[in-house]
Amino acid sequence: MTAVFKLPYPLVLESEGVLDDVSVAYRAWGKLDASGGNAVLICHALTGNDFIVCSNILGSCYGTTGPGDGYGDAFPQITIRDMVALQRALIRHLGIHRLRLVIGGSLGGMQVLEWALAAPDLVESIAPIAISGRHSPWAIALSEAQRQAIYIDREKGLAVARMIAMSTYRSHAGYQSRFGRDRKDERFAVEKWLQDHGERLVRRFNPDSYLRLTEAMDSHDVARGRGGYEEVLASIHQPTLVVSIDTDVLYPPFEQEELASLIPNATLQTIQSPHGHDAFLMEGQALNELVVDFRQRQSGPARLRVARG
Amino acid sequence: MTAVFKLPYPLVLESEGVLDDVSVAYRAWGKLDASGGNAVLICHALTGNDFIVCSNILGSCYGTTGPGDGYGDAFPQITIRDMVALQRALIRHLGIHRLRLVIGGSLGGMQVLEWALAAPDLVESIAPIAISGRHSPWAIALSEAQRQAIYIDREKGLAVARMIAMSTYRSHAGYQSRFGRDRKDERFAVEKWLQDHGERLVRRFNPDSYLRLTEAMDSHDVARGRGGYEEVLASIHQPTLVVSIDTDVLYPPFEQEELASLIPNATLQTIQSPHGHDAFLMEGQALNELVVDFRQRQSGPARLRVARG
Repeated sequence: MTAVFKLPYPLVLESEGVLDDVSVAYRAWGKLDASGGNAVLICHALTGNDFIVCSNILGSCYGTTGPGDGYGDAFPQITIRDMVALQRALIRHLGIHRLRLVIGGSLGGMQVLEWALAAPDLVESIAPIAISGRHSPWAIALSEAQRQAIYIDREKGLAVARMIAMSTYRSHAGYQSRFGRDRKDERFAVEKWLQDHGERLVRRFNPDSYLRLTEAMDSHDVARGRGGYEEVLASIHQPTLVVSIDTDVLYPPFEQEELASLIPNATLQTIQSPHGHDAFLMEGQALNELVVDFRQRQSGPARLRVARG
Repeated sequence: MTAVFKLPYPLVLESEGVLDDVSVAYRAWGKLDASGGNAVLICHALTGNDFIVCSNILGSCYGTTGPGDGYGDAFPQITIRDMVALQRALIRHLGIHRLRLVIGGSLGGMQVLEWALAAPDLVESIAPIAISGRHSPWAIALSEAQRQAIYIDREKGLAVARMIAMSTYRSHAGYQSRFGRDRKDERFAVEKWLQDHGERLVRRFNPDSYLRLTEAMDSHDVARGRGGYEEVLASIHQPTLVVSIDTDVLYPPFEQEELASLIPNATLQTIQSPHGHDAFLMEGQALNELVVDFRQRQSGPARLRVARG
């Protein structure tokens, strides 16, 4: 069941804007131990035995404060750091003192990197998936085309935005094996599938949230205000599992290779998948194996030390 | 200067629709020899010493009959084969009996392949560039997202369609080196550049032409009505220069590898470029070298035979 945390003070944004009466919708699984030290923070699906927290991000439309709560397009510009600052208030509220792992893919992966930098003493390890250290002009270009469609028409434009996005989330090979040049109702099957996805998002998502969240993604740059890009990534001290998808056209493998080469304590793992960027959602088993393996390597020596102590 | 050829009979389309009073706008360079045998047909820029013909395609808006000539969205569905059938009427009209080379990139490359199959005795050699033998569901998906934007709003939607297209015509690396995360007028430079491209296309292109031409591209399949895909490509007997661009995300290199492996007399050449699909327009010098080399290899043995005879 989804719980709601009411932030007991106004949220000051990176832009210096202020949001009053902020709510955070979240779910938690498992039991927090007495020390508040066994928490895993995720932005997307994952199974495990720890106390796991996943909160809806600032600016979204599933219970956390966003444009749909009476703000509309007056909702302020937000950044990934604003999202993390709000999650951090939730983490404090829940009595969590250590985050064993912060994990997430795509927009979630942006938050993961910001968590490592914003709260180095709180975060024990991180797993950024299918993401880069700063949003590329390629990704910004594809975001901007989507926003322009929404500016024309909020609902129909949101459907078009989703159609653009669903193309970039998948891959040439994935579409080829799934659709080929098959026809359905006198159209190409891929066209029908794409339109259905567009219409479904219109029913479940707020256009202003879509605008603000894609703008927040474009703002993503771990180095903003912190110094040189390479030095900032080099300052991440946590054990880091960087996961790459070989067919990702939106955040191509060389972006994760860059992260893994610049973060000192990083391991790079690549998932082979025809599904493109969306493999981070679709290849659950492969991803789970990588994370379990990473966590065993982290916890192994610690347990040995306890046994010897 | 652009000339106009008025088709002296109605054009019967692949769909069995009929277009009356069809005009073809074209340019020609050089002098056709007495035998009508020294012609090169192109769909995009190229330098050379032959008699060179480039005609605006059916359905476009630069002088050849298209939706803008009073048809609007009543303009019939057209295919690549319809474009080639009309070009063929022009070629006959000009007294051309042999086409030494038919060359083109992207949509032009689709026409090149259809020329080889439609007029095997007329075409001596072909050079399809940055294209596949049939439009992939990946390319269809990206076309469909563009059309949906135009259905919302003809002009603003055409601008969005161009923004989507310009993203897919370039590459992650190309945008990175050109724009990085630079800002211009409080926005990302890449956003400004993309919007300018959108607005410029609105001033120079007809939305109905854009719809019909992208639909024609989606119809592209050399095997349609001819038999098996591999057999149809295997029936192309002309010396063929297949050109691939290593960073093309819209028509990735494996599509040209497939063409070159299935066309019996084909040579595959790859242009290394950060520019993605648009390298076929931007890497003029590299492309020219490949074409000159290909043509020398074709004409070399023929000249030797003449010298010995």
